[in-house]
Amino acid sequence: MILNSNTKIFTDKEALPGVKRVAGKVSCDFKAVFGKEAPINEINGQIQSGDGTVIVAATLGQSGYLDSLITNGDFDKSSIEGKWEVYSFQILPAKDGEPERLLIAGSDKRGTIYGLFHVSELMGVSPWYWFADVTPAKKASVEITSGDCFVSKEPSVKYRGFFINDEWPSFGNWTFKHFGGFTAEMYDHVFELLLRLKGNYLWPAMWTSNFSLDGPGLENARLADEYGVVMSNSHHEPCLRHSEEWDLIKGEDTPYGTAWNFDKNREGLTNYWRGGLERNGKFENIITMGMRGERDSEVLGATATLKDNIDYIKDVVTTQNKLIKETISEDLDSVPRMIAIYKEVEKYFHGDENAEGLKHWDGLDGITCMLCEDNFGNLRTLPEEWHRDRKGGWGMYYHFDYHGDPISYEWINSTHISRTCEQMSQAYDYGIREIWIVNVGDLKPQEFPLSYFLDLAYDIDKWGQENKNVVKEYTEHFVEVNFPTFSAADKSNTCELLDGYTHLNYIRKPEALNSEVYAACAYGEAMKVQSKASSLQARLVRMWPRPEGDPLSDAFYQLIYYPVSAACNLIHMQLLAGGNHYQAGIGAVNANDLAAHIKKCIDKDRELVNEYHSINGGKWDGMMLSEHIGFTHWNDEECAYPVIMLTEPANRPRMIVTSGHEMKASQGGDWTRQKLFNIDLLDPYKKETTITVYNGSDTDLQLAVNGVSECSHEVKGATPDWLRVYILGAGLKLTGHQKYVTLILELDRDKLKASDDCMDGTARTTVTISTERTHVDVEVWAGVCEDKTFVPQMTGEIMSRMWPPYAKDHVFSNELGLTVEAEDFTLSPGSAEAEYRLLTEFGKYGSGIKAFPTTKYFTPGKDAPYAEYTFTVGKQSGPLEETGEEYDLLGTIVTAPGNPVVKGNPMAVGVSVNGGEIMTVETLDPGYEGGERSCRQWASGVLTQDHKKDFSFTAKAGKNTIRIYAADPGVVIERLLLRQLGTQWSYGYLGKVPGWIETIISE
Amino acid sequence: MILNSNTKIFTDKEALPGVKRVAGKVSCDFKAVFGKEAPINEINGQIQSGDGTVIVAATLGQSGYLDSLITNGDFDKSSIEGKWEVYSFQILPAKDGEPERLLIAGSDKRGTIYGLFHVSELMGVSPWYWFADVTPAKKASVEITSGDCFVSKEPSVKYRGFFINDEWPSFGNWTFKHFGGFTAEMYDHVFELLLRLKGNYLWPAMWTSNFSLDGPGLENARLADEYGVVMSNSHHEPCLRHSEEWDLIKGEDTPYGTAWNFDKNREGLTNYWRGGLERNGKFENIITMGMRGERDSEVLGATATLKDNIDYIKDVVTTQNKLIKETISEDLDSVPRMIAIYKEVEKYFHGDENAEGLKHWDGLDGITCMLCEDNFGNLRTLPEEWHRDRKGGWGMYYHFDYHGDPISYEWINSTHISRTCEQMSQAYDYGIREIWIVNVGDLKPQEFPLSYFLDLAYDIDKWGQENKNVVKEYTEHFVEVNFPTFSAADKSNTCELLDGYTHLNYIRKPEALNSEVYAACAYGEAMKVQSKASSLQARLVRMWPRPEGDPLSDAFYQLIYYPVSAACNLIHMQLLAGGNHYQAGIGAVNANDLAAHIKKCIDKDRELVNEYHSINGGKWDGMMLSEHIGFTHWNDEECAYPVIMLTEPANRPRMIVTSGHEMKASQGGDWTRQKLFNIDLLDPYKKETTITVYNGSDTDLQLAVNGVSECSHEVKGATPDWLRVYILGAGLKLTGHQKYVTLILELDRDKLKASDDCMDGTARTTVTISTERTHVDVEVWAGVCEDKTFVPQMTGEIMSRMWPPYAKDHVFSNELGLTVEAEDFTLSPGSAEAEYRLLTEFGKYGSGIKAFPTTKYFTPGKDAPYAEYTFTVGKQSGPLEETGEEYDLLGTIVTAPGNPVVKGNPMAVGVSVNGGEIMTVETLDPGYEGGERSCRQWASGVLTQDHKKDFSFTAKAGKNTIRIYAADPGVVIERLLLRQLGTQWSYGYLGKVPGWIETIISE
Repeated sequence: MILNSNTKIFTDKEALPGVKRVAGKVSCDFKAVFGKEAPINEINGQIQSGDGTVIVAATLGQSGYLDSLITNGDFDKSSIEGKWEVYSFQILPAKDGEPERLLIAGSDKRGTIYGLFHVSELMGVSPWYWFADVTPAKKASVEITSGDCFVSKEPSVKYRGFFINDEWPSFGNWTFKHFGGFTAEMYDHVFELLLRLKGNYLWPAMWTSNFSLDGPGLENARLADEYGVVMSNSHHEPCLRHSEEWDLIKGEDTPYGTAWNFDKNREGLTNYWRGGLERNGKFENIITMGMRGERDSEVLGATATLKDNIDYIKDVVTTQNKLIKETISEDLDSVPRMIAIYKEVEKYFHGDENAEGLKHWDGLDGITCMLCEDNFGNLRTLPEEWHRDRKGGWGMYYHFDYHGDPISYEWINSTHISRTCEQMSQAYDYGIREIWIVNVGDLKPQEFPLSYFLDLAYDIDKWGQENKNVVKEYTEHFVEVNFPTFSAADKSNTCELLDGYTHLNYIRKPEALNSEVYAACAYGEAMKVQSKASSLQARLVRMWPRPEGDPLSDAFYQLIYYPVSAACNLIHMQLLAGGNHYQAGIGAVNANDLAAHIKKCIDKDRELVNEYHSINGGKWDGMMLSEHIGFTHWNDEECAYPVIMLTEPANRPRMIVTSGHEMKASQGGDWTRQKLFNIDLLDPYKKETTITVYNGSDTDLQLAVNGVSECSHEVKGATPDWLRVYILGAGLKLTGHQKYVTLILELDRDKLKASDDCMDGTARTTVTISTERTHVDVEVWAGVCEDKTFVPQMTGEIMSRMWPPYAKDHVFSNELGLTVEAEDFTLSPGSAEAEYRLLTEFGKYGSGIKAFPTTKYFTPGKDAPYAEYTFTVGKQSGPLEETGEEYDLLGTIVTAPGNPVVKGNPMAVGVSVNGGEIMTVETLDPGYEGGERSCRQWASGVLTQDHKKDFSFTAKAGKNTIRIYAADPGVVIERLLLRQLGTQWSYGYLGKVPGWIETIISE
Repeated sequence: MILNSNTKIFTDKEALPGVKRVAGKVSCDFKAVFGKEAPINEINGQIQSGDGTVIVAATLGQSGYLDSLITNGDFDKSSIEGKWEVYSFQILPAKDGEPERLLIAGSDKRGTIYGLFHVSELMGVSPWYWFADVTPAKKASVEITSGDCFVSKEPSVKYRGFFINDEWPSFGNWTFKHFGGFTAEMYDHVFELLLRLKGNYLWPAMWTSNFSLDGPGLENARLADEYGVVMSNSHHEPCLRHSEEWDLIKGEDTPYGTAWNFDKNREGLTNYWRGGLERNGKFENIITMGMRGERDSEVLGATATLKDNIDYIKDVVTTQNKLIKETISEDLDSVPRMIAIYKEVEKYFHGDENAEGLKHWDGLDGITCMLCEDNFGNLRTLPEEWHRDRKGGWGMYYHFDYHGDPISYEWINSTHISRTCEQMSQAYDYGIREIWIVNVGDLKPQEFPLSYFLDLAYDIDKWGQENKNVVKEYTEHFVEVNFPTFSAADKSNTCELLDGYTHLNYIRKPEALNSEVYAACAYGEAMKVQSKASSLQARLVRMWPRPEGDPLSDAFYQLIYYPVSAACNLIHMQLLAGGNHYQAGIGAVNANDLAAHIKKCIDKDRELVNEYHSINGGKWDGMMLSEHIGFTHWNDEECAYPVIMLTEPANRPRMIVTSGHEMKASQGGDWTRQKLFNIDLLDPYKKETTITVYNGSDTDLQLAVNGVSECSHEVKGATPDWLRVYILGAGLKLTGHQKYVTLILELDRDKLKASDDCMDGTARTTVTISTERTHVDVEVWAGVCEDKTFVPQMTGEIMSRMWPPYAKDHVFSNELGLTVEAEDFTLSPGSAEAEYRLLTEFGKYGSGIKAFPTTKYFTPGKDAPYAEYTFTVGKQSGPLEETGEEYDLLGTIVTAPGNPVVKGNPMAVGVSVNGGEIMTVETLDPGYEGGERSCRQWASGVLTQDHKKDFSFTAKAGKNTIRIYAADPGVVIERLLLRQLGTQWSYGYLGKVPGWIETIISE
């Protein structure tokens, strides 16, 4: 059948207002797509459409028309009866005078609504049509075939929703400007969005706003109920009243008293809660139970014992249950309730040896226990096996936005859906299927992860961990839904942009990024990150501005252009600042050029905000007000733009030479000359290393490399034939705009092997950089080994040359070592009982290994899956005979920053080398507490997005195999680092990334 | 008699060429002063002058005319006969047909020359007439009366001179530009200057120059000899040959060989040395003996024993003595020789238990032992008593310029003559009277201290330590000699400028100053130093430019204007940089204004150099090329201008509050607010403290103080009556140019006493600084005690409030404590055997106490002089009854950065409290070695210009008297600091300076 401008929608007369309202929304979608609204007709006996297509929306039990279809055998009610939020989507052929009809039959109100919005989906209307200006494409018609007919599945999770939170300054300013406050006029759009996203559940804004007073009056709550949106208050606002409301209503001469303390003000609080239940209890809610202190704090003082607190909560919940019975229903189990096991309440939930926790108390039966992650997307304690099937079930409170320690993130999206998928799938495995709610902050900048979160909750089979390509597929899906008219190339580009900026933001949240995060020198890290960001910006240039008149221009701006531009600009700014500080510190005048660029980035950041606020006639004015640069504290107070440093050119000609990853610089003066060392090329992974020469003055400087100064692209004849020197820059003269030059030293290992310089597979040569009066020697070491699994060792000679004898107790830091990415491992054969799976496009480093089933504890060497890697140790000269020599190595297991599924679990893995004894490596520090700001490993892990744990072991000359066995659940291994014991990695945020650009010349 | 344009000079026909040459110089002075040269006539029998005044210059034993006067009884030869460099200056009446004559009769050639130049002095011609463009005033006549007649004293020190050294880039460039090299044409001016300054001894330039080859040829040496200037080579250039010469002459096929090693090349070196002696031995020299390695290094390798080295030197000296006998004189003792006891040679001189030192070797008899200070103006080992009167005597090599560790100083003068006086007088006391030589670097910028050094060496009675006002008097003398035509007010101002900049440079040498030296916050230190420098600049404005046509304009520029301007500008630059870094770090936008000022200072520094190079037609072009900013290494390589930091204004209104000496800043946001504490007013010395509020954004900020925002000069009614708040700035609004405001909190102790707030003599109040959205509380503590000798104690309450409990092991740093300046002590009655003397205008802190005789070791409690100070401890409430309570205090003795007179002496003093046991406080660390760069205390002391040593003791409530007894010689106590034990001073370079500006309002 054909949907077009001649389509009509039919509903029963007795259809719920919410269904009628949504039918109206769909009717508007017809106008947007076909140019004409679809009239909405009440069914009056038989449907007579005249010409035009007919859509019938009906809800089982609330539709005489559907009843008649059932009676006539035209509809099989068993397909939906008794199901939760299911709809049947069928084409009924013309019959008995009625025309062909598209029947949408909901098992319940929201089933019907989802079915209606499915029509919009088929017409190409994005859930974000209003909230992200995704203007649907105009069409003449849309054909619905029998292939489109189906009965929807029940959603994977019963209640699925989001929490508008931390809504100032952005969302708050925006809604006040456009809707005069947190009004029903605004919430209308929110409810619609939620339902189009197949969510059903909402925590409304609650910073200086009152959902039940601001509608005006009760209009917000009434409208939600009409829509079928289930409301809760947030985790610390019981009995359908906001904490803001308490401030308004409390008082000495009121029935409520003043103390937010059930011990001291039992009567007042009871009155207050009863009032809330009486007022809002008639709507569909999940009632928040229990209580916490005012505004997210502990209620009892520091002197109260655990038992005091537990008893207190029991008293509160018992009272609240009683009030619910009185005001809503004697059948408590029929009233959805939840209690948040959040912050200190978690302690009360678990109790200890002296105080039985709430989890054993039957007063909570039937109440959903709402768990939460650590505010940074990492699950915390999960239901224990004995408790998973409890009555009332489990919920999970997740964050895409957070206002708190260690550093808030409230700006554009910085959550990578790979981690959300992995974590929320695990939550599902642990039986958390009653409620999923995600904090989306100001909502707007989180379009992408929110879509994913609700789609995942709706259909975990499709978008959960069983889908190995979920990141790629979901990204494509999102782009398809929102940019359906883009060319294939543009869609592909858009996917890259969307995933690209999200990943950069995930690696380090913008707010937590500062000039010192990425190493200015080591690993070429700053350059690599800059290159990533630049490549995104280059892609963006191909996509923006959109062609004149592209109706998706505003949508693209909000969903792609702004976040990509702003994120990359911010990253550039901080990288430039890092470079600026480093270069100013060594006196390189190029620092001043960087300074100007930093200022440009700061200005651009502001311009982008203004631009965002001005698009589509200022529709989103206010929405990007969140501070996002240089948080020095958990919130935006005292946030700081990077300090910009300037250096004054020296009075006389001055060159400044640096090499490889070392921060050390030498100016090569007679008295201050320092020899520089570069051992990068001992690393089989590296074919190239660098010497960078900066100008320290405004004077021209003619450089020479081992005496050669006349050369263009390559410095020929200056170095042994196994080491070629290329110039990245316009020759060897520092002059004008060329304030520095980078020399690429390219190693030819075949020539090195054949060279007389080569001893035991290694050689060294000195590259002398000179000016008229100064010179610096760079001693470059190189090795012949090309085995990418080789773990290089620094010989005593290298150490004694690079580090003077007085540095004896020094731990030698350098870049020689092996990064084994998750994808480099060989995994043991999998089974349903035990399997290591490779997660692709995952986390900080791009891949991860996780054991399944996620609920299982394994015993290494018995039932545990393992991941295996074979590496080589010995001399570079090879063939690496098994000489029996032993090498002490240091391993570092790098994991996703996960928390244990039960408190105190160390998230251990087993490690065995060459089939030897299995040692246990606990990836968490003793006393680790996820979500506790005083726990350093946690607090640093949520910013670095990883945990690292060292272990040492002995390897033998030649090939070695290291196995990592699964043990505790929830561990995701992202990397294994291997290096010589007694040495440490140079400081770097990403460290050695073999997968990223290693070849500089080709850039 | 009258000197005027009609004066004639007469010399004997047989007079030495040098005398005739100097007579010619004096003749030129006549032209300069009276407009006409004084003709020089040879005496031919009787003197017939016609009209005009007659001056006769004659040298005893070389003048037939003088012989005839003696014969005739007209001159008493015993007044000068046998004396060293003495002259008789007498008016002979007309007699026997000869006219009235001014007779200058020298005991020897230099006696006559000094006498001749004394005529110039009387005419008002400065020694610096050429070398600093001190143009003499034109006069009609100068009268010489009988009061001017005298016989000069023998100079205090036999050989007095300077060393032109470290002569690149300044002196070297200059002389090449103007004289084509280090030629006799240039040295003519140097010799003349030396003699006019009553010096007689020179070490010539030796960096890429050869005194005996550059004249051209031997002309330099010949001319020196003609002038009577005694030459040496520097300490490591034996036998009248330069090290540069060795490089020119050595070679495989030469008689000299190539090795600068007497063991390996005995014959070659003997030839080389013989050549030098043969060539230059005919001139007046002090021959440098012994040898060191090439270019100031050790000659034998690291494996050589001490005895090897001693034997080596003995061998060398024996050979050299033999060569001198062969080439110059069999009477060795008649040949002045010296050996430098410098760097490693000192070890050979003293020897150890296994190797008898050179000092016991008779081969050195008759050779002057040249000691040296630590290159920074502090004497090192001095002659032991048994050795003081050795044959050959002692010399001292001193520095006003140094090229070496820890940081070179080669620019304008940074030596305060108070220290030179004190140290060189002590050297004299220890018998160092044969040679004094001072390294003056490029000569030019050291006009003032060089004049002092040579005047002191010439007449130690007049300018040495017995003259208690030497600094003031010598400064006045120098100004009188060089600016005789200035008004009294201008002379006084010039004295202040001269002493002022020298003192600032002495406190911290310009090269060693950087942005972190002076505390940006503590002690108002940066402000105080800035104020000192500004007041000098203000004085300068009154003096510059000189009135049109002032002939002293160029002289004033070189001697005063340039060094004062450049020194103050450099200090401002570094202080601004310190402020800039601090303010940028806390996000104060005023940092950006400071940044602009820093850049101006950098530009001004360059402009001043260019200006110096252009004055007087470019006569001094090149002379100010020495680098002088931000040495990071001992020499100027890698020297760095301060990094300039910029801060980006915050996006929202932001205030930043700081108080007192704390670096801590608070922005007063809800979550990040920090309480600030200010305990300054517990200090009886302080009547005022400050709160400074910076703007952190470009937005206007209206501030309020305890709610009061409407106010102008004073914030009335906001604080208790005992604490008044004044505004340093244009009101409480941060807007436009006013990017910060300082509030002065002024304490009224009388009102505090009467206040109910006052408990136990102290009180506290909170001063809240607020804006519309933020506020910061500053808790201000104050005490009633006005006793300036009171050592305040922090109570447990203050500590627990200011420092949170987790800071338990913290040492509490603050400014509460007492600085007792040297001048605050009461000294024991003095005697010739034992006396503590107060040195005024001395050293870093302005005064010092030193024990005399300086050669004596005292026993505290027996024969030692002492210095006494009475202070108070207890509660502020007073009267301070003797409750028997005890207080643990920390004393710090601050001394001049002296070295012990014998190696290993700890420079101890005795300390006794309230007449109790005398404890020994060693002011030097164990193992201290003056002049050794590896000795931290030394290396830091020569930069900070002090040594500090702590000791703890117990005091009783009420009055306490502390006595410091002299013990070891050479200690100069500059300060005693007293404070509560367990606390430490805030970081500061000068610390608490009660004598400097404390009242800010009056500024």
